[in-house]
Amino acid sequence: MFKSSDDIRSKQFSDHIRYLNLPQKLILDSGFELDECVIAYETYGDLNEDKSNGILICHAISGDSHVAKHDEKDIEGWWDILVGPGKYIDTNKFFVICSNILGSCMGSTGPNHKNNKTGMYWGSDFPEITVSDMVLAQSKLIEYLGINKLVGVVGGSLGAYQALEWGVRFPGKTNSVLSLAGGPRLTSQGIAFDIIGRNAIRRDPNFNNGQYYENSESPDTGLALARMLGHITYLSQESMSEKFDHDRYDPRDIDTNFEKQFSVGSYLAYQGDKFVERFDPNSYIILSNAMDKFDLGKNSYEISKKFKDKNLNWFLISFSSDWLFPTSMSKELTKSLFLANEEVNFVEIPSNCGHDAFLLEDDIHYYGNYISNFIENLLEQNKSVSTEEPKLSFDHELILDFVLGSKKIVDLGCGDGKLLNDIKNSRYTENLLGIDNDLNELLETSNKGIPILSLDLNKDLHLIGDKQFDKAILSLTLQAIINVEKILNEICRISEEVILSFPNFAFGPLRDMLSNQGRAPKLEGVLGYEWYNTPNKRYMSILDFEDFCNEKNFNIIKSRYVNSSLKQFITKDYNYHADLGIFIISK
Amino acid sequence: MFKSSDDIRSKQFSDHIRYLNLPQKLILDSGFELDECVIAYETYGDLNEDKSNGILICHAISGDSHVAKHDEKDIEGWWDILVGPGKYIDTNKFFVICSNILGSCMGSTGPNHKNNKTGMYWGSDFPEITVSDMVLAQSKLIEYLGINKLVGVVGGSLGAYQALEWGVRFPGKTNSVLSLAGGPRLTSQGIAFDIIGRNAIRRDPNFNNGQYYENSESPDTGLALARMLGHITYLSQESMSEKFDHDRYDPRDIDTNFEKQFSVGSYLAYQGDKFVERFDPNSYIILSNAMDKFDLGKNSYEISKKFKDKNLNWFLISFSSDWLFPTSMSKELTKSLFLANEEVNFVEIPSNCGHDAFLLEDDIHYYGNYISNFIENLLEQNKSVSTEEPKLSFDHELILDFVLGSKKIVDLGCGDGKLLNDIKNSRYTENLLGIDNDLNELLETSNKGIPILSLDLNKDLHLIGDKQFDKAILSLTLQAIINVEKILNEICRISEEVILSFPNFAFGPLRDMLSNQGRAPKLEGVLGYEWYNTPNKRYMSILDFEDFCNEKNFNIIKSRYVNSSLKQFITKDYNYHADLGIFIISK
Repeated sequence: MFKSSDDIRSKQFSDHIRYLNLPQKLILDSGFELDECVIAYETYGDLNEDKSNGILICHAISGDSHVAKHDEKDIEGWWDILVGPGKYIDTNKFFVICSNILGSCMGSTGPNHKNNKTGMYWGSDFPEITVSDMVLAQSKLIEYLGINKLVGVVGGSLGAYQALEWGVRFPGKTNSVLSLAGGPRLTSQGIAFDIIGRNAIRRDPNFNNGQYYENSESPDTGLALARMLGHITYLSQESMSEKFDHDRYDPRDIDTNFEKQFSVGSYLAYQGDKFVERFDPNSYIILSNAMDKFDLGKNSYEISKKFKDKNLNWFLISFSSDWLFPTSMSKELTKSLFLANEEVNFVEIPSNCGHDAFLLEDDIHYYGNYISNFIENLLEQNKSVSTEEPKLSFDHELILDFVLGSKKIVDLGCGDGKLLNDIKNSRYTENLLGIDNDLNELLETSNKGIPILSLDLNKDLHLIGDKQFDKAILSLTLQAIINVEKILNEICRISEEVILSFPNFAFGPLRDMLSNQGRAPKLEGVLGYEWYNTPNKRYMSILDFEDFCNEKNFNIIKSRYVNSSLKQFITKDYNYHADLGIFIISK
Repeated sequence: MFKSSDDIRSKQFSDHIRYLNLPQKLILDSGFELDECVIAYETYGDLNEDKSNGILICHAISGDSHVAKHDEKDIEGWWDILVGPGKYIDTNKFFVICSNILGSCMGSTGPNHKNNKTGMYWGSDFPEITVSDMVLAQSKLIEYLGINKLVGVVGGSLGAYQALEWGVRFPGKTNSVLSLAGGPRLTSQGIAFDIIGRNAIRRDPNFNNGQYYENSESPDTGLALARMLGHITYLSQESMSEKFDHDRYDPRDIDTNFEKQFSVGSYLAYQGDKFVERFDPNSYIILSNAMDKFDLGKNSYEISKKFKDKNLNWFLISFSSDWLFPTSMSKELTKSLFLANEEVNFVEIPSNCGHDAFLLEDDIHYYGNYISNFIENLLEQNKSVSTEEPKLSFDHELILDFVLGSKKIVDLGCGDGKLLNDIKNSRYTENLLGIDNDLNELLETSNKGIPILSLDLNKDLHLIGDKQFDKAILSLTLQAIINVEKILNEICRISEEVILSFPNFAFGPLRDMLSNQGRAPKLEGVLGYEWYNTPNKRYMSILDFEDFCNEKNFNIIKSRYVNSSLKQFITKDYNYHADLGIFIISK
């Protein structure tokens, strides 16, 4: 009836579900000792001989262990688009595990189970559960499956919290952490929505202080209201417009006790009613509480302490229209991970789909491929090392010469990662990073096994700590930057030295065009545009740049003046004869 | 306890409230005939002799007639910061009227009144009320006060809807309409929040189908939940962070039955409980319903039909962080009013305060002064015509010459409005408009009595219809624009002819700097910057521009080549001797 991420969920359980009774009691964050604990889980694919191909997938607040179909006859899974044979998380290669979280109502121990000590339903007496408790239970399952180290832990939303918590609590048990639509904590706005949801449930007269399992009535109205509210936060303003504006006054004729004026009204009523059939109000309270209380720290500096010495690969994915976990949250994590000297990847995916984007097909080209590149590179670390000698352009050759012996190198405006790949293939480096704002290009870079960040040089360099790189490369990009001084200062802050190349605007043939013909200068290559459509915005000569460095206290450590078509270094009258300047500077 | 826009509201009524029993029955939009109707209202200041200084202020969903204090002893009004003697809406000059809207519970007829026919409380039997019905009742009050034509109708949020509806329904009874934080309709997301609020009230077991006035219990929980939700939509994500992040885990110890974990939780509980004391659940349903159903049309073309031939002055103000009525809504109105050939002003005010911004002091410098400039200029139309002959710069003089006889002129990048004011003072023009993105500069322009729009030339010109101007002026701005072709096309679309001036980059002294010194050219004036900090991004010669016009099919109607320091026209070898080109082009 309504197509949404939620339509693929069902109260019905798959036949493939398994149950693990934890052999020992679980000691929770709160100190509470849970004597008996069942974990419902499902696995996909085969564990390889050395048990090194395991991936744990963590579900969101209303999810379950059924991440994907096991076969064609099986009921639909909530991430079928991502997980399965030949899919982005390829179960022909990986052994995928997904378990229902503690406190939920989808098979694992939760408030709708009986407390064996009292013989009564847990209800409101079920202990407070934290994200760390969920992760602890998962770690017992992984142990039981005989896996010492996972390839990665992957999750979105509350699942992202679990993945991050895995990195913090069990860094030795996984190689990587993938967080989709996550963050270090909820916004105050996000918490406020949850609070209203919990108030609606608790103030429902049928709540009966959480002991409603044996009553004829449950707090269904409260739970439905909470779910309606949740749904608004999972969608975006844009996606709601797309879904409902065109037939705003034409609600679906559904059977409900809720208002069904407006198309969006009938949608909410439907989602609310449907959720009541499959979810437990007490679980909703417990899990939303766990979400609201998850907090890695007040700011990047505090958070970075938690991330210190984990030595993991992290991948953070945000979606531009997600306002429940806005991109700023993933950027805060990125900054914190930099401060902790962890290896971090981050991409923001442009999307209209809001928080739900990570569950939907619309943007899977990006998030699916980024995940797939990342985990497959982890599986076969050296896959992309070419045996061929790289063929280099002249300026790349010079830059390579300049980075010789550097261990940590960032390429700002890395494009498809060609230069970084050349560096990777020709010299030993400990740490490479590509930064760009073109997601398609970055996908190529990540496919080469190089960590990537989708950032805007004009705004986002503050995310990177001081002197985190030996060398930063800014190849043929300076002339397209508006805030030259600010950005060069930033780059010199994050890197010991900066290698930059730019076209010399006082190159003889360019001067002649203006002087003799009275025309805006133009050549091939980066200067091969018309005055009205060039990406270049700054026109400086080599002398101008040298003056600028003197005046603004940038140290010029090395410089080369190049005639790139002749492939020659120029020394005499270089401001006339060189078409390219290459500098190493620092501050 | 909590400082918010809502703290200034109170159930207590001012002694200055008056009641008008409408002498005739009111025929509502729905056809329902309301036999008896009371309008609660207050007035401020004195009506002048010719009754031409009236301003009607319309309140938002939970407001009342008490817009401001009447004297120091009086209780606080909800817009005291804006309205009063010597304030932005100066009650020493204006006669201000504010009435409680129909269907509310603050004195005017609503569901908490008794239906005299039955002797019972109206409750759920109260007829459906539309914004148009509210405005109809207000018009009766204005008539009763003996006012034929108001200076303006002003309102924010639901008040903005009323102001807009005045323009549509009673264009002859007002000179202007001021809409703050408004739009042509709610977003589907906004409607969704209202629906959840109404569901919470109606599904509260104490709702009793709306007949709870004589019961011991009212649907207080439902109303409180609805109000909590409303509060989130009135604030912004940023303002909630500012308010609550710093002491997130430190809730105020208030007396409430709602959850008070988290500082934001205690805030919501407080706001919910407080609202229950002063507002009627039935009114909340009726008024939020009226908001949800207000719709001026599906798109700008439909809306423009409603705005045709009103001949009013319109002023639309939006706030950047308002997500309940996002700026795009005010822009849609702007576009519609252009299409209808109405005189429209629009500014987006940068603000962190969300929808509530129009009630708060934070941004009142902007919205207060814009309102004040606008209404005071309406009061004394000819105030700013100077008797002095204007002193003009040479290029302004030339531009003035070019616009001679034009009736509709827009200055794109008008700054403080000097050029437009010179035009206004020296020639007869029917219609002037200044566009800029600097709000402080625009405030100066509006202070000169010239209509203004805060728009970004790169993105927003699509809001203006085809050929709505005779002449568009682009003075010394072209060289700072990145998408030259796209924007010139847009400007030629909105205006019959475009007058533009730009610096000639092939001016002799500039050529010499590059050619002889090998330096990025620099002169005084618009070329008086360093290569790394100039606002200019395009460097073209007069010949380049002429070629561009030929190639891209822009017609050059007139051109002048100027040496501006010598104040001379250049004809011979102008691409070398002129430092400035002035063109009239069209397409």
